[in-house]
Amino acid sequence: MKSRHLIDLSSDLSVSEWEEITNLACDIRKNIDSYYGACRGKILATLFYEPSTRTQMSFQTAMLRLGGRIIGFDNPANSSVAKGENLKDTVRVVGGYSDIIVIRHPLPGSAKAASLYSRVPVINAGDGGHFHPTQTLTDLVTLRHEKGTFSGLCIGLCGDLKNGRTVHSLIKALAEFPGNSFVLISTPSLRIPAYIKDYLSSIGSPWQEIDNLADAMPLIDVLYMTRIQRERFASESEYYEQRGLFVLDEKKMSLAKKELIVMHPLPRVDEIAVEVDDDPRAKYFEQTEYGLYARMALIMKMLDGQTKQSEALPRPADIVCSNPDCITQHETYVPGVFRKTGDILVCDYCDERAQL
Amino acid sequence: MKSRHLIDLSSDLSVSEWEEITNLACDIRKNIDSYYGACRGKILATLFYEPSTRTQMSFQTAMLRLGGRIIGFDNPANSSVAKGENLKDTVRVVGGYSDIIVIRHPLPGSAKAASLYSRVPVINAGDGGHFHPTQTLTDLVTLRHEKGTFSGLCIGLCGDLKNGRTVHSLIKALAEFPGNSFVLISTPSLRIPAYIKDYLSSIGSPWQEIDNLADAMPLIDVLYMTRIQRERFASESEYYEQRGLFVLDEKKMSLAKKELIVMHPLPRVDEIAVEVDDDPRAKYFEQTEYGLYARMALIMKMLDGQTKQSEALPRPADIVCSNPDCITQHETYVPGVFRKTGDILVCDYCDERAQL
Amino acid sequence: MKSRHLIDLSSDLSVSEWEEITNLACDIRKNIDSYYGACRGKILATLFYEPSTRTQMSFQTAMLRLGGRIIGFDNPANSSVAKGENLKDTVRVVGGYSDIIVIRHPLPGSAKAASLYSRVPVINAGDGGHFHPTQTLTDLVTLRHEKGTFSGLCIGLCGDLKNGRTVHSLIKALAEFPGNSFVLISTPSLRIPAYIKDYLSSIGSPWQEIDNLADAMPLIDVLYMTRIQRERFASESEYYEQRGLFVLDEKKMSLAKKELIVMHPLPRVDEIAVEVDDDPRAKYFEQTEYGLYARMALIMKMLDGQTKQSEALPRPADIVCSNPDCITQHETYVPGVFRKTGDILVCDYCDERAQL
Repeated sequence: MKSRHLIDLSSDLSVSEWEEITNLACDIRKNIDSYYGACRGKILATLFYEPSTRTQMSFQTAMLRLGGRIIGFDNPANSSVAKGENLKDTVRVVGGYSDIIVIRHPLPGSAKAASLYSRVPVINAGDGGHFHPTQTLTDLVTLRHEKGTFSGLCIGLCGDLKNGRTVHSLIKALAEFPGNSFVLISTPSLRIPAYIKDYLSSIGSPWQEIDNLADAMPLIDVLYMTRIQRERFASESEYYEQRGLFVLDEKKMSLAKKELIVMHPLPRVDEIAVEVDDDPRAKYFEQTEYGLYARMALIMKMLDGQTKQSEALPRPADIVCSNPDCITQHETYVPGVFRKTGDILVCDYCDERAQL
Repeated sequence: MKSRHLIDLSSDLSVSEWEEITNLACDIRKNIDSYYGACRGKILATLFYEPSTRTQMSFQTAMLRLGGRIIGFDNPANSSVAKGENLKDTVRVVGGYSDIIVIRHPLPGSAKAASLYSRVPVINAGDGGHFHPTQTLTDLVTLRHEKGTFSGLCIGLCGDLKNGRTVHSLIKALAEFPGNSFVLISTPSLRIPAYIKDYLSSIGSPWQEIDNLADAMPLIDVLYMTRIQRERFASESEYYEQRGLFVLDEKKMSLAKKELIVMHPLPRVDEIAVEVDDDPRAKYFEQTEYGLYARMALIMKMLDGQTKQSEALPRPADIVCSNPDCITQHETYVPGVFRKTGDILVCDYCDERAQL
Repeated sequence: MKSRHLIDLSSDLSVSEWEEITNLACDIRKNIDSYYGACRGKILATLFYEPSTRTQMSFQTAMLRLGGRIIGFDNPANSSVAKGENLKDTVRVVGGYSDIIVIRHPLPGSAKAASLYSRVPVINAGDGGHFHPTQTLTDLVTLRHEKGTFSGLCIGLCGDLKNGRTVHSLIKALAEFPGNSFVLISTPSLRIPAYIKDYLSSIGSPWQEIDNLADAMPLIDVLYMTRIQRERFASESEYYEQRGLFVLDEKKMSLAKKELIVMHPLPRVDEIAVEVDDDPRAKYFEQTEYGLYARMALIMKMLDGQTKQSEALPRPADIVCSNPDCITQHETYVPGVFRKTGDILVCDYCDERAQL
């Protein structure tokens, strides 16, 4: 692999590695029993600084189905963290117990910071609203299975497109493949950030914004639904007025292509009516199973040939990141690192931009 | 098995299946090491919507002793449930990860509702005050071992007979076998429900009610003790006046047969004096071990030859259940189902009766 | 082993058994893969009546690396304990599920009390501020690896020497070997108890007290750092005045021998500056790995040839322990046991002394 760790899909895996992992996931799905034992004697540690039972259970199941073992915590109030231990020490100690670490943490950049101090591979299972690469891998495996391709698709994305990290990451991933176009379905206040639209335009990927789901249904091959949290709407009245426009039900399904597939990262609340579950085009439950195979493939690939080792730390930059949530503001021993893009400096942990 | 799931002992297992499972449990007890590996590569998920460490640990140990693996949660506040996910979605997703699901939930009918949506077998580990079939299986395995029979026994049941579901279920189970009689020992306010006494009379099983434990001791072959919660007494003064009448101590033990066995579903608080623990007739600690073998036997039987599959949902009834705690009142997509007994309709989830 | 249980290092293991375990731990470290399977089919239960994720994870990892399985709880609020179950019943029941029990409990003497009722070996993972024998085993394995000897060393101990049980236990252990001397580094209010100094003097082990770390650095072969909790200082102003004197940084490291090793039971807060981590003499992260090997060796040794059995209870003494925190004050069925030293009676559970 390009990197020993998986913090961000685009930075840490090449496109050919995505394909390799999704192909391996397909084979695991067909022959799951023959992979039992692939990680015999190995231990996966899940360090969940904020609870997320579903994600944790998916990683744990993946390791158990490979014949490995699991340790970890889901409640930092019970752990050494509550005694004031820093991230570095926790990662150093747990790396002495385990062969691979999965970390989820509320602060952006935390998984990257953890990886600096880890002698074993680190997988980012969500660092605040920043990255969640295994969800995107899950989405890719779902497309591979259900559509047979990553190319030539018209993808509708519906819900909170402003704050949804899984949406941003999926668009970025699919933009790597030819012939994809995007239909962005949301309220005016939850539109996708301008820089993503600019990026799509710059590479010639067609996109359009539509402000209700019904109009989008006939156009799309894939519908990616996400939760809209009530508090994300501009106002309470906007919520009551608008939410019906974005709820998927059988009536809206009747407007869609016969080959449509409906995806959702789950858990859903009420943005998809229960009646849709029986429509053969609904693939969100299958999607969580694909997520299991994706994580099995990833763990196998990351453990392959790895030995425990420490790497040299980067040289610290002269400036500090200005994002108050950035992990470097909370764990001050972590060396600041920035990359230059034009006359912009971008924090390597949280991707906050700073003018030079 | 009669059913793929175990929600209620009487509905889901035939009497010959009870005997098959208790016999298998006996063999496991004698040759436990030879069963290690019987569930190799299989995963059991424990979904505990209310905590019950003891029950959860017993199922987990059972699966581990069979060579299988375990996932699950015991704190729904940390899980997707806290984000508003419904029971159906949780069961669909976890069924994609695991081979068998154990569910405990505060609402009656919840395990039955969960089983409708599960592609893998579901075991009810307690749905509110409703059913707890593996406790009854545990009790049967204990009788098989310690008395060698399910028939011809005089069984004393002591404590809260009004609210104790394990007591109701055990009486119902033993009434299937010939020659059993029942001594019901409780305060007037905690008597067993009339319908159970009516049932025993209707099938010709002798029973009597006694309002203190000492008088019952000489009569019985089996004493089944349960906790009496202080708040169940009619009044605080009744509690202080009466509780001594129902506490088992060595003095009361001295009134009993030499072959008596004492059972208790545990945990106990103070309804059995610690001094009784050393009496060879005290079998409540052994009983928890029999529970382990019972659960091992059950898991083996339920996984045997099972493949993941979904079943058709029942057609919803025209009426809704009137029990405000019934799962169908809380998860409204669950189809109402009723069975007719005379001119009574009984809810298939929580067993609430409705006049036609 | 001298005892089936490990409650206290000195009472339950002979010095030759310490050496046997540390030697086995060394071999495990070199050939860890060849020990996978040593505990196949065995189950370790962790009963944590107060949370300590790090210690629990270390025991769990040890058992998993030996090919065994794990059950347990870390939150008694979720367990039968919350329903009022006593320690004896919990241990009896869990001993029916598992092959070895690790217990951590806030009350002194609790692990000893638990061991009385257990049919399987019990390991004390901390009983209040009383004993924590596997931490001391960890320290010994670290010394064996890093210094190659337990003898002829000058050991500095720094921090809260008054309340630190790991410090007391390590001094007691090293005093068993010839040629060791001790440098005790603390504020006046956190000095080591007089009885330990008296003991060292009585066996002819040299010791001195020093009230700042810099002066001690040139003298020592081993530096054992511990946390000083702010609330342990005599006053807030003493804290701010003095704490700098006890923080280890690179400047103080520059005063030390080239062969010094720095140990810390972890988690640290800020008593060791992060810059020291890169000094090759810093061994505290390695120390946690040695703790894993120590626990693997201990579990193997304790399971070796053990069968489940109950032992006779000791005869209760005529007096009760006067320590209000002693487990015998909280679980009153536990028989009081005292040992006589001169005209002093010492409680066998919490080591409180009573005048005859």
